[in-house]
Amino acid sequence: MKIRLGLDIGGTTVHGIAVTAHEPHDIVTEATHPTRKGADGVVAVALDMVTALRSALPADAEIVSIGLGVPGIVHGGAVTHAVNLGLDGNPLELAAAVSAGTGGTPTTVENDVKAATLGGLQWLREHGSDVDDLALLNVGTGIAAGLLLDGRLRHGSRGMAGEIGHLVHDPTGPLCPCGRRGCLELYASGSGVRRQWAGTAAELFDAADAGDLDAVRIRDELTSGIAQAISLLAYSVDVTCVLVTGGVVSATPALRDAILHKLRSDENTSLGRLAGIAERVRWLPAGHPAGALGAALLGAGDEEAGSWRS
Amino acid sequence: MKIRLGLDIGGTTVHGIAVTAHEPHDIVTEATHPTRKGADGVVAVALDMVTALRSALPADAEIVSIGLGVPGIVHGGAVTHAVNLGLDGNPLELAAAVSAGTGGTPTTVENDVKAATLGGLQWLREHGSDVDDLALLNVGTGIAAGLLLDGRLRHGSRGMAGEIGHLVHDPTGPLCPCGRRGCLELYASGSGVRRQWAGTAAELFDAADAGDLDAVRIRDELTSGIAQAISLLAYSVDVTCVLVTGGVVSATPALRDAILHKLRSDENTSLGRLAGIAERVRWLPAGHPAGALGAALLGAGDEEAGSWRS
Repeated sequence: MKIRLGLDIGGTTVHGIAVTAHEPHDIVTEATHPTRKGADGVVAVALDMVTALRSALPADAEIVSIGLGVPGIVHGGAVTHAVNLGLDGNPLELAAAVSAGTGGTPTTVENDVKAATLGGLQWLREHGSDVDDLALLNVGTGIAAGLLLDGRLRHGSRGMAGEIGHLVHDPTGPLCPCGRRGCLELYASGSGVRRQWAGTAAELFDAADAGDLDAVRIRDELTSGIAQAISLLAYSVDVTCVLVTGGVVSATPALRDAILHKLRSDENTSLGRLAGIAERVRWLPAGHPAGALGAALLGAGDEEAGSWRS
Repeated sequence: MKIRLGLDIGGTTVHGIAVTAHEPHDIVTEATHPTRKGADGVVAVALDMVTALRSALPADAEIVSIGLGVPGIVHGGAVTHAVNLGLDGNPLELAAAVSAGTGGTPTTVENDVKAATLGGLQWLREHGSDVDDLALLNVGTGIAAGLLLDGRLRHGSRGMAGEIGHLVHDPTGPLCPCGRRGCLELYASGSGVRRQWAGTAAELFDAADAGDLDAVRIRDELTSGIAQAISLLAYSVDVTCVLVTGGVVSATPALRDAILHKLRSDENTSLGRLAGIAERVRWLPAGHPAGALGAALLGAGDEEAGSWRS
């Protein structure tokens, strides 16, 4: 039985998954470990996860690939910028280290949101959407997109395709930890809400409905910021589908309604009608393992028809 | 001798070009006619241009393809939205009409900026840049980009890839003719300058240097808006090269310097250093016939190695 492993290495936890090597990529086993940080910690936690997944597999299982998703910039097989993993200095040759530590298993590393796009594609296909052109927009601690364009995952010339969170949204806005002012992420992300609001996003919407003026402002900035991110993807790459994921969106139905309302208001213009952005939006259900699943699929593209490899 | 014709059908003039069918696509003849508007006018002016170009070709010339670039949204071979050609109602099947009027010559229609991207690629190759991944950013009456990603022209799901001019840049800004407020085009385009300043862009920069506060504001908005457009292309699709074209940029060296200065200021952040956006920027010289040349190359991709066809 041929198996692909996928590891979604987040700032807090590592989610590991083992899937069958070929379509429909059934999930065989899963595990979750706490993250360790720094170069040595990340390599060690990845190798421990591989060992844990392997021990849960049938005796005849053969691991044919390992895919790693990391929250940072990945280029040339190295992780060059991943603050939440304690990697912000020298590039880490993570794929090479994990391959060496597993007896030479072919290993690929990619940005976590880019990897998750492949998992999102799988979910869309299982739910009757025959697209091969989508953006997965992740609204988590930050906001970033993965782009699958005409069936090919877009890496970008420096691994930065879809890194829209630090585009300047309001040049008069507050200082962002990145050093710029008014980045999109300050408004349209979990951290953007938390910096201004102590409760959950659902509580934010309730308080806004009850007339709390601060809540109204924060809610409207969150809604507009996410709608702007979706519009930006529609007018820059014009993808068929924008699949939105992330805790703040999944847990807040009122936010989804508000985003769609905002996008539909754009359809009062003739360009907006042609663009029809609201109808492109889909929401990935909470708990879908798109990150780990997509990481596992990083190894699959070379062999399958309709390859998404860039 | 096999020939490809390219027509860049602008709001004021039609520029026609005939090139050799294969690399290096030498220019054989060119012509310029005034545009006629409306569906009948556009078809007629295109057919007249084909006749004019044909009459200037050697007797043994065989026209193997015709490409048409139009300032509007093109989808499924039809022009669906082209205000400056008097086409804002029913889709116009322009490629079919021109093909029928020329005895069945294979004819392709594409948005003018997307077509020009192929012309820009040709210029880069002639000037030692071996890229196949670029955005051509056209700063003309409006602002829009064409995307060539990993050698493939990105059309988009609705023909809107690169149509960034009506992304909202400042939601508190003035009303745009499109119906939105504060579109990027209101700041970062020729029309954006003209709505606020009676002279040329060069005179704007001189007045700003002399301390005119209105001129300083308009200059800074123009500079920041174009820099934002370039950044948006870098952080959304992360292209290797952004080739900037258009009269306002070509005629104003001080504007080019100011854009690069603004982009370099972003490199004070760690993400900005990784992105290195300023070094990706190239400027297409004034007078380069990228629009008509690119239109002629619309017919070439299917046959040549490294096809850019989407």
